[in-house]
Amino acid sequence: MYIGVDLGGTNIAVGIVDDNGNIIEKGSVKTLKERPTDEIVFDMARLSKELLKKTGIEMSQIKAIGIGCPGTINVETGEVVYSNNIPMEHYMMADKLKEYTGKAVYIDNDANCAALGEYAVNGQGAKTFVLVTLGTGVGGGVILDGKVMHGFNFAGGELGHMTLVSGGKKCTCGKEGCLEVYASATALIEQTQEAITKNPDSLMAQLAKDNGGVTGRTAFDAMNKGDAAAKAVVEQYARYLADGLVSFENIFQPEIIAIGGGVSNAGEALFEPVREYIDKVRFNKFMPKTKVVKALLGNDAGIIGAAMVARAADV
Amino acid sequence: MYIGVDLGGTNIAVGIVDDNGNIIEKGSVKTLKERPTDEIVFDMARLSKELLKKTGIEMSQIKAIGIGCPGTINVETGEVVYSNNIPMEHYMMADKLKEYTGKAVYIDNDANCAALGEYAVNGQGAKTFVLVTLGTGVGGGVILDGKVMHGFNFAGGELGHMTLVSGGKKCTCGKEGCLEVYASATALIEQTQEAITKNPDSLMAQLAKDNGGVTGRTAFDAMNKGDAAAKAVVEQYARYLADGLVSFENIFQPEIIAIGGGVSNAGEALFEPVREYIDKVRFNKFMPKTKVVKALLGNDAGIIGAAMVARAADV
Repeated sequence: MYIGVDLGGTNIAVGIVDDNGNIIEKGSVKTLKERPTDEIVFDMARLSKELLKKTGIEMSQIKAIGIGCPGTINVETGEVVYSNNIPMEHYMMADKLKEYTGKAVYIDNDANCAALGEYAVNGQGAKTFVLVTLGTGVGGGVILDGKVMHGFNFAGGELGHMTLVSGGKKCTCGKEGCLEVYASATALIEQTQEAITKNPDSLMAQLAKDNGGVTGRTAFDAMNKGDAAAKAVVEQYARYLADGLVSFENIFQPEIIAIGGGVSNAGEALFEPVREYIDKVRFNKFMPKTKVVKALLGNDAGIIGAAMVARAADV
Repeated sequence: MYIGVDLGGTNIAVGIVDDNGNIIEKGSVKTLKERPTDEIVFDMARLSKELLKKTGIEMSQIKAIGIGCPGTINVETGEVVYSNNIPMEHYMMADKLKEYTGKAVYIDNDANCAALGEYAVNGQGAKTFVLVTLGTGVGGGVILDGKVMHGFNFAGGELGHMTLVSGGKKCTCGKEGCLEVYASATALIEQTQEAITKNPDSLMAQLAKDNGGVTGRTAFDAMNKGDAAAKAVVEQYARYLADGLVSFENIFQPEIIAIGGGVSNAGEALFEPVREYIDKVRFNKFMPKTKVVKALLGNDAGIIGAAMVARAADV
């Protein structure tokens, strides 16, 4: 059994997770991210102990604790090198939680944790596995032979910052034309908004008005009701996404690419055109093909993934 | 000691290579690619034996033989699944060369071999290493922990077929906007030709005329003589290339990206603007940085890499 901690800008979510990635018990408290980081970590320990008490599990039954944390992480030293979301610099988070719990603590970037969690539960033992999450940004991680692909400096796997349109729109990272700028939920909302401005009489425009604004669902909902402008938005968005995914396929040849994050809830309305495009243009013509599937873990991916980081490291 | 075979569309190059990747002796014969493949493989064996005789090395001193072959290779079975360049389908090449030599034979894609060869000789033990070759196409390979990254179906590492310009120019692979269409030597020549058409009075146009046509050097040579149109060509080409390389950096965080192929001979005139762009836009701000260097192995990369494939497999 492991404890997984999913540290977010809003909540600290903690779970007791069995060896197979099933959550036995979970809970959360507010992060209150402006307070001293030691207090945040203290709350991870406090919540862990509460969950153990609640379930009657002893701390001695926990093999190790994993933390998923936003930012740049040195997974070997357990240091949060830098985090913008929860303000931290050179903070020895693993050591601190070890001090508060007496357990071995391992830490990784939250996107890597999500990929490892999804892989553990839904990866079917794939030799190469990629998770791409479509949320505020485009995140993800790459799992090779069951392990997170970190790069030499632990900063690898930034799939959202592959260039998709050289010289294209500016990304928050400073580069132009990142996949994130074209395929995130934020991008989809922007693309929908632009199409509404150009097509003020469309059903899509009406739908946005009725619902008090544009969301990542607006274009899909309007398309399902037969709106042509909405269909064009979905088609273009699917093309951007598919162009990114087929690049990952050509580079990694993963057995599975799992798509998570809010936009993935659009389901087949998104996956069908994405798969159709990839089938048409993939480089690999003669070997078994990559499968593009919907990620199955939702919010729990972080907790489970953090626990799986502990499982992977605790050998 | 190993034997490395670099099978190309024009020549079969064979070398005896020591355990550290140094060529002891090498030679080549014409591939004559339209003849029966068994004959091509027989010539690999014949040339190997000639080189052994010439050097006084016994076949018993050779630990294994490696082949670098164009096309889709099943590295586990030693099968050439498909090759367009040298017409082959489901050909058990490793078994055949084993039959002719009595040695263990391993085979990998020629681009992967080149990457492994460059890594063995110039990789400085990097945990993650990427080779990108700028030739007729854009090839390359990824070395992780000293091993070729193959993907689940052995078709991975097609770095030239990452999308760089979504919806851009058509690639020979069938997809639009591949890195290869913007950053290969072929692309550079095309970009140079287009600029010459637009600037018929430029020094670059004169240079092309004097030299009987445009090559991958024309723009660099004209730029060095102060031609503004040529400078613009180099700047745009460097930007395309750098946009691809920084994507590989953000994805893999390799310690080293080595650039090979004909265009890399332009040297600092190319590397300087490429590094400058990457320094400005890389995602990783807080950890050690990827180094972009010129690949050092030229034509020998194939032989050495094939031998290193044998070394890696022969354990």
